[in-house]
Amino acid sequence: MTVEDKTPVPQDLERIAGGGLLHRRELLVGGAFAAGAFSLRPGLAEAGSVGAAQPPSMRKPGAPFRGYGQPSRFEKSVKRGIIKIYGDLAPGAGVSTTPLQSLNGTITPNGLHFNRSHNGVPDIDPKSHYLLIHGLVKRPLKFDMNALLRYATTSRICFLECSGNSFFNSNLFPEPKQLPVGMLHGLVSAAEWTGIPLATLLDEAGVKPEARWVLAEGADAAAMSRSVPIEKCLDDAMIALHQNGERIRPEQGYPMRLLVPGFEGNLSVKWLRRIKLTTEPTQTKDETSKYTELMPGGKARQFTYPMGVKSVITRPATGLAMQGPGFYEVSGLAWTGHGRVARVEVSADGGASWADAALSEPNLPLALVRFRLPWQWDGSPVVLMSRATDEKGNVQPLRAAWSAQYAAGQLYHCNAIQSWNIAANGEIKNVYV
Amino acid sequence: MTVEDKTPVPQDLERIAGGGLLHRRELLVGGAFAAGAFSLRPGLAEAGSVGAAQPPSMRKPGAPFRGYGQPSRFEKSVKRGIIKIYGDLAPGAGVSTTPLQSLNGTITPNGLHFNRSHNGVPDIDPKSHYLLIHGLVKRPLKFDMNALLRYATTSRICFLECSGNSFFNSNLFPEPKQLPVGMLHGLVSAAEWTGIPLATLLDEAGVKPEARWVLAEGADAAAMSRSVPIEKCLDDAMIALHQNGERIRPEQGYPMRLLVPGFEGNLSVKWLRRIKLTTEPTQTKDETSKYTELMPGGKARQFTYPMGVKSVITRPATGLAMQGPGFYEVSGLAWTGHGRVARVEVSADGGASWADAALSEPNLPLALVRFRLPWQWDGSPVVLMSRATDEKGNVQPLRAAWSAQYAAGQLYHCNAIQSWNIAANGEIKNVYV
Repeated sequence: MTVEDKTPVPQDLERIAGGGLLHRRELLVGGAFAAGAFSLRPGLAEAGSVGAAQPPSMRKPGAPFRGYGQPSRFEKSVKRGIIKIYGDLAPGAGVSTTPLQSLNGTITPNGLHFNRSHNGVPDIDPKSHYLLIHGLVKRPLKFDMNALLRYATTSRICFLECSGNSFFNSNLFPEPKQLPVGMLHGLVSAAEWTGIPLATLLDEAGVKPEARWVLAEGADAAAMSRSVPIEKCLDDAMIALHQNGERIRPEQGYPMRLLVPGFEGNLSVKWLRRIKLTTEPTQTKDETSKYTELMPGGKARQFTYPMGVKSVITRPATGLAMQGPGFYEVSGLAWTGHGRVARVEVSADGGASWADAALSEPNLPLALVRFRLPWQWDGSPVVLMSRATDEKGNVQPLRAAWSAQYAAGQLYHCNAIQSWNIAANGEIKNVYV
Repeated sequence: MTVEDKTPVPQDLERIAGGGLLHRRELLVGGAFAAGAFSLRPGLAEAGSVGAAQPPSMRKPGAPFRGYGQPSRFEKSVKRGIIKIYGDLAPGAGVSTTPLQSLNGTITPNGLHFNRSHNGVPDIDPKSHYLLIHGLVKRPLKFDMNALLRYATTSRICFLECSGNSFFNSNLFPEPKQLPVGMLHGLVSAAEWTGIPLATLLDEAGVKPEARWVLAEGADAAAMSRSVPIEKCLDDAMIALHQNGERIRPEQGYPMRLLVPGFEGNLSVKWLRRIKLTTEPTQTKDETSKYTELMPGGKARQFTYPMGVKSVITRPATGLAMQGPGFYEVSGLAWTGHGRVARVEVSADGGASWADAALSEPNLPLALVRFRLPWQWDGSPVVLMSRATDEKGNVQPLRAAWSAQYAAGQLYHCNAIQSWNIAANGEIKNVYV
């Protein structure tokens, strides 16, 4: 493929789209850059044949062992963003967001997993916590933690995304907000979750034939409650007890949560205390007052569960600064509630041309995928975008197309393409395309 | 397969080996247990049709948001074990071990990743840390952190295992030690590591044809140094910057470490400051005074890098208590430095008969695999064992066979089968078989 482009790129590197995007195979090229076509990057210097002088860390013993490790003190600024919905009136109603601009890879460390709480994070002693399964079952059952820890377990890596993720780009905000990418899109995280298939426990209680829905209720002060179709409960839903190996964190539902892979995050009810089998959805406050899609004409759609195909470039992105012209890796995350991500394309010319990014392996269903593409920035203003397609053929829409489907004020399920405007001075801004 | 066994097992569950081991397909069975063949487990009760009373956590707002999360206060006992090799004389020389008995799944949370330090954990300001590449290169290079963060990255989930893992079961200890499984075998952990392929940086510096080895040196007070074959460096070695998404922890080498997948952990030099290309191994103190295999006849093998195929049952295991007869999941971890784990077998009769365990997906090369098998314990004394086989056909040896290969005092690369003796009273002990 030949693209008209004046960006200076070495002859032996394949230019694949406008604005200096290179073929993804060039990710593995080091020598091409050393061949003299590129100047040395800032911070990279030719060194003499003598090694660096020994730093202070080599001249005194280091710190002793710790039972539970923490990040370096030099990474203190890497933390979740916090948005309180009602300010200090209800300090536990809001969200904390994953700082996507500071992370790489696909797993979110437990301390930075996003959190949506409706009335704070309860402090639950597992010794006095029970899970009740009742309603349309042959034998209502009540489990304590020890009983649950005897069951056969399963593990899966999957994403959780808040239904309201990216609300700053939704119809609530006709003008783009200037916030770090983690504040804009960080209500998505991924972990390896381990627990008991919900099907096992439902089978043990005995599902009555008329049961079509399940009510899941949390033990928090909001009694957060959602209705889940029985088919999903018997398919891949899980009572999650572990998150990246250890017991789940308080913000993620300690001592247990429901995990409903691929569906909007609030269905994965935290601090789970009760599963009730019903014939109809329960129409809880959490599925009538919110978590619905506002349509033109005044109707609202309920129970639109799978999260749409989506991607976002996390580097370069708002919250980071460009370091002048030269080589960059364009890197970001993609996911879909409909199986696997099939493709992520990147544009460096505002959507005029697109190049296929490399996708990280293993590309697991309902998990985050990291996409990467090499890019030679010539220092002129550009608009960077990414567009994901999933294995079912769903394509991430432009913001205008997403917005037009809905009424004013619609904020949930925003999977619109994110566009970053990079100015000649290196400033990165959120723009609507 | 029919096995002579008096363990009471429901008719419709397939018994697959002695001692009550069930076919792995029964992992998904819930209803069989509800059908009356098993009595209710401790902690599981039939519940009335009325839900549980609301717990205190529902009657007051929970805690507000936190920038960086921590485990529940009820999980304080879940921490790394600490073994100081020289006591308080050198409090930073030793290990901290992953508490395998408390974890499930295959990812180790960053706070519980094992740590082997030779002179403590240095506190390194990334602003004053440099990586030097020198020796047999066309152009010696010195990188600061900003320069490195401009390179194209890659991610992979893999295990790291200390060459000295399981030394309590090695020839150093003719009698089995009674310690929690994490203290016995917890010098293995797994994470998603993200960084720059070492090949990229070597290519940029220009490898001279006569370079066959690489010296890697850490910036700790032990100047921990190892020699790595150039082939491995150009294959899958990486300069790791991120661990499960966030920047790597101080105990794992902040601000950067070498990562050499599948090879003994000490090659993945932490706090990496220097890569020197050489014609021969450098014969550093760390590869002559230790990390060698003591053979009968007084010779020692050097540079035996890939870790052997291995598995360990982590539940039930030492550090945990049985809760009386009934259903259990036998669960553990398996790994190999030679690609993928092909098979894990479990025995509940001291090796007389074996059953295939289910392996967790995705089964990635050089990563941890979780194996699971359902088990009905009748309360009589048993010896539980697991045996892993990798895709190259390597089979984990019995301890006696492992031990006989080596001289007295040999402690490294111990991949012998672990046997747990479970007494009628539920006590679990380490035994040599």
